[in-house]
Amino acid sequence: MAQFLKLASAALFAASIAAQNSTYVNPAVPTGTPVVGDYNGALRPQVHFSPPQGFANDPNGMFVDANGTWHLYYQYNPTGTVAGNQHWGHATSDDLYHWVNQPIALFPPEETVYVFSGSAVVDSNNTSGFFPGQDNGVVAVFTLARYYADGSAGPQTQNIAYSRDGGYSFEYYDGNPVIDSTSTQFRDPKVIWYEDHWVLVAAYSQEFTIGVWTSPDLKDWMFASNFTPHGLLGTQYECPNLVKLPVRGADGAVIDEKYVLAISIQPGAPLGGSITEYFLGDFNGTHFTTLDPVTRLTDFAKDNYAAQFFYGVPDGQNQINIGWASNWQYAQQVPTGNLEGWRSAMTVPRVNYLTEAPRIGLVMVDEPYDLAPILDSQLNVSMFNGDGTIALDYSSVESGALYLEVNVTNINTTLLTQYSTLNISFASPASGEILQSGFYFSGDTPFFVNRGGIKGFDNVFFTDKFSISDIYSAVSSNEFASWSMKAIIDRSIFEVFVDHGFHAGTVVFYPLQPLTTLNIAAHLPSDAQVSVDIRSLKSAWAQFENQNGAVTGNATSTRS
Amino acid sequence: MAQFLKLASAALFAASIAAQNSTYVNPAVPTGTPVVGDYNGALRPQVHFSPPQGFANDPNGMFVDANGTWHLYYQYNPTGTVAGNQHWGHATSDDLYHWVNQPIALFPPEETVYVFSGSAVVDSNNTSGFFPGQDNGVVAVFTLARYYADGSAGPQTQNIAYSRDGGYSFEYYDGNPVIDSTSTQFRDPKVIWYEDHWVLVAAYSQEFTIGVWTSPDLKDWMFASNFTPHGLLGTQYECPNLVKLPVRGADGAVIDEKYVLAISIQPGAPLGGSITEYFLGDFNGTHFTTLDPVTRLTDFAKDNYAAQFFYGVPDGQNQINIGWASNWQYAQQVPTGNLEGWRSAMTVPRVNYLTEAPRIGLVMVDEPYDLAPILDSQLNVSMFNGDGTIALDYSSVESGALYLEVNVTNINTTLLTQYSTLNISFASPASGEILQSGFYFSGDTPFFVNRGGIKGFDNVFFTDKFSISDIYSAVSSNEFASWSMKAIIDRSIFEVFVDHGFHAGTVVFYPLQPLTTLNIAAHLPSDAQVSVDIRSLKSAWAQFENQNGAVTGNATSTRS
Repeated sequence: MAQFLKLASAALFAASIAAQNSTYVNPAVPTGTPVVGDYNGALRPQVHFSPPQGFANDPNGMFVDANGTWHLYYQYNPTGTVAGNQHWGHATSDDLYHWVNQPIALFPPEETVYVFSGSAVVDSNNTSGFFPGQDNGVVAVFTLARYYADGSAGPQTQNIAYSRDGGYSFEYYDGNPVIDSTSTQFRDPKVIWYEDHWVLVAAYSQEFTIGVWTSPDLKDWMFASNFTPHGLLGTQYECPNLVKLPVRGADGAVIDEKYVLAISIQPGAPLGGSITEYFLGDFNGTHFTTLDPVTRLTDFAKDNYAAQFFYGVPDGQNQINIGWASNWQYAQQVPTGNLEGWRSAMTVPRVNYLTEAPRIGLVMVDEPYDLAPILDSQLNVSMFNGDGTIALDYSSVESGALYLEVNVTNINTTLLTQYSTLNISFASPASGEILQSGFYFSGDTPFFVNRGGIKGFDNVFFTDKFSISDIYSAVSSNEFASWSMKAIIDRSIFEVFVDHGFHAGTVVFYPLQPLTTLNIAAHLPSDAQVSVDIRSLKSAWAQFENQNGAVTGNATSTRS
Repeated sequence: MAQFLKLASAALFAASIAAQNSTYVNPAVPTGTPVVGDYNGALRPQVHFSPPQGFANDPNGMFVDANGTWHLYYQYNPTGTVAGNQHWGHATSDDLYHWVNQPIALFPPEETVYVFSGSAVVDSNNTSGFFPGQDNGVVAVFTLARYYADGSAGPQTQNIAYSRDGGYSFEYYDGNPVIDSTSTQFRDPKVIWYEDHWVLVAAYSQEFTIGVWTSPDLKDWMFASNFTPHGLLGTQYECPNLVKLPVRGADGAVIDEKYVLAISIQPGAPLGGSITEYFLGDFNGTHFTTLDPVTRLTDFAKDNYAAQFFYGVPDGQNQINIGWASNWQYAQQVPTGNLEGWRSAMTVPRVNYLTEAPRIGLVMVDEPYDLAPILDSQLNVSMFNGDGTIALDYSSVESGALYLEVNVTNINTTLLTQYSTLNISFASPASGEILQSGFYFSGDTPFFVNRGGIKGFDNVFFTDKFSISDIYSAVSSNEFASWSMKAIIDRSIFEVFVDHGFHAGTVVFYPLQPLTTLNIAAHLPSDAQVSVDIRSLKSAWAQFENQNGAVTGNATSTRS
């Protein structure tokens, strides 16, 4: 949760954050019923989560319950399209693509205290004592951030709330805060289970320090260690995630496990604004130690921040994260706010594991989570050798969303030249706008995305071009090499996974007119085999619309 | 030196790199006389070094001699405007701005062996034995890179050459290579003196390892240690620099000294392509150990690579570096090649020391070296409070180059809003092109540069926007704060030093028409004092032109 707020309000009430289990409900914020959304806007993603209306940022409290229901909470301002007035919005899904909007899950305890980012766990053994006779109790752990009447920031403390209805409604614990502090820059607790105790990591943002605490019961937390400044600092650390990932060998089998400590940086990332870095290491229950002093980045573009891993995915399996598909440099200015009344989508769910990359050592792989529930028609399935082009008009695809997979095999690297390229571009014939991407198979082997040809948003921080040198590709090392990419384009988000997920990029873009044509052009040695599979995607939101086109969410809920 | 070459030549001779002191001179390459240049092109920098014609990349062999003459060598292809056919070009200066082109200093030993990057030292005590009776002997230490007939890369080895005429002409040592290797990715030696011995650092590029060697005489090198992968890796390490810098307190006094190990990354930098990171540490003559696992970047933009520190600046003083003002992603495509017959300038000389930045710890400060020799008229000296604008037509400035300094003091930070900004833009009324920069005094306090409004170069890697969050500024912490910037604009290069050099950015840009107007607009609280000083810069090249407008360089030289 970014320290973005500078309130100008005149006479806000400034008391200490006392133990309390009441909440303050702004009269404009609905309770007990989801906020209603219109998901038909031309910029509204159809297979990504975005809030029904208002402003969303960091994903929060993510867990999967015993029924296989995925819970996504998120930093939410239900009354405006800029950050502020932070609640925890809530949505649930059975497949990570079709999200049912739920009633707001966490409300501010007071008018001037906001619910910042945090996490949630299922306390199936009732370690907390909140859940006698229950194995589906949920505890949310989050930052409460006070603001004073003059707009200045008060303390940030770590607090808990418990849900006896499986995560739909929460009561504040009356012993809050569970980790007290006088710091104005101490936030974003993420909790995991380690063998026999809970572990919490939170950011001392401006000290570039991640604190580690342990607890038997989620209420009493003991300080365990500090992870001192590492890697890129930017100007703040936020949203730490500690997660154990399987290490997979070349055949996909699990050969080891290691921890990842992911830290989001905001502002001051190399590309400007917000970005996420991660460190590989071991964790012994109290201390995280890095395997090496290497700084790794989750994305090569600048629109994936504050990603969180779901709690409850079994140990030893690939883990799953979702990030906020934006950047604080322009999140509050993008045109979806004025045009459609909402701002910020989440990334698609990403499946993660570690594997060895040539020369680099272990890297975290990102792949889109199983897309089957949203895959629609095959629009084009092509296979050709060497040079080839595909021109596809997808204006008839109602969702405007596509999935694209390209595999290139049998590349004779001795025949590659600077002209050996694969270009993929999406365009609007109506406006002349174009979103370009492509791969150069020789030289520095860059994969690039260029949103500079999209004209619906003008901002001095909205960088146009992103690229990554894809050395993970076998292209650079073997004589007969292969290369692949997967991409999802969804009205105003482009997500790409290069070379089996060794590289990932999330790029938001805001066209004046919908992009409706796809052009692929391959210039490759004649033996190279190019395989292309283009599918339309079904809107994940359409099924929730009523006859007026409004997504009412779980309107029958009486849980909160 | 980037591993860029993939020769297609048919029947090149592939012998081993034997001990030799002959050289191969391509018939098209002049010897004993400088290459002639035309420095009048509309894109040709007037106060930056650029080669007379052809292609320049990494600065090499930089040293200052006992007479105070600065020697700049550089990776040079004198016969084309793309990389290849690498020689060491050479120029000298008394003030680091007025450069006299000298005859090419190092030629390939064979047609298929190129002289890649390296450094030079003054062997004033004749440790090498090359210089009996001399105290001005110069030894160059560099990589020789072999290419085979099929274009594939052969071994890269470290070699030396000596100059008995103060660095103008060199003889290859007959005991080369001084560090042998079978690696095709082992390069860019940089030599310094440490107490009683020479120290060489060189990159095992694809292992992300910097090797450290020691020698009593520059001929016999003993392996001392490896600096293993640290920080951002990109896909290669290049051009390591180990340099001792003074640590200055708030009053400017030297309070300590620390070493910096700078490593250039190419390709795969976060912004795409090439960038330089640095690590702070201690050096004991054989081992560099970091002070912390933090990754620091020299620039916030993407056009400063392979910078080298001058040898010979006395210990305890600020050190001085010059970088290559480009990026391998587009260095060989920029329009100066086709339009004006040259590609790539160097940055202005930068003065460096370390100092404590709020919250971040030690950082390397960059400031432009004393500009006095090129400062010309004061075009505008303004002082105003709060809001104000300056509009300057500088079309009459013959060089097209300006120096700009802005100081803002007495900023009441409690009155800052999101509209508190200072914008500086350069434009061409003829073409409508604009180069924007500016600072937001509140929020994330970003300083930005946007070259997206300049239309003379279109390339999918030519990123438009760069920014940095300037927390070093007192703006974020004190009630009455100050902020400053210095910038040099020079036809096709913009270099900016933000907040007393805590941040620096080098941005190349290629306008269709010369930029001739400068607009400054300040929107600040009414007590804030804005002081602006704009000066024209004198062309550093004009004085070397003959009556035909050609810069012939040191044509009277008979030294080589």
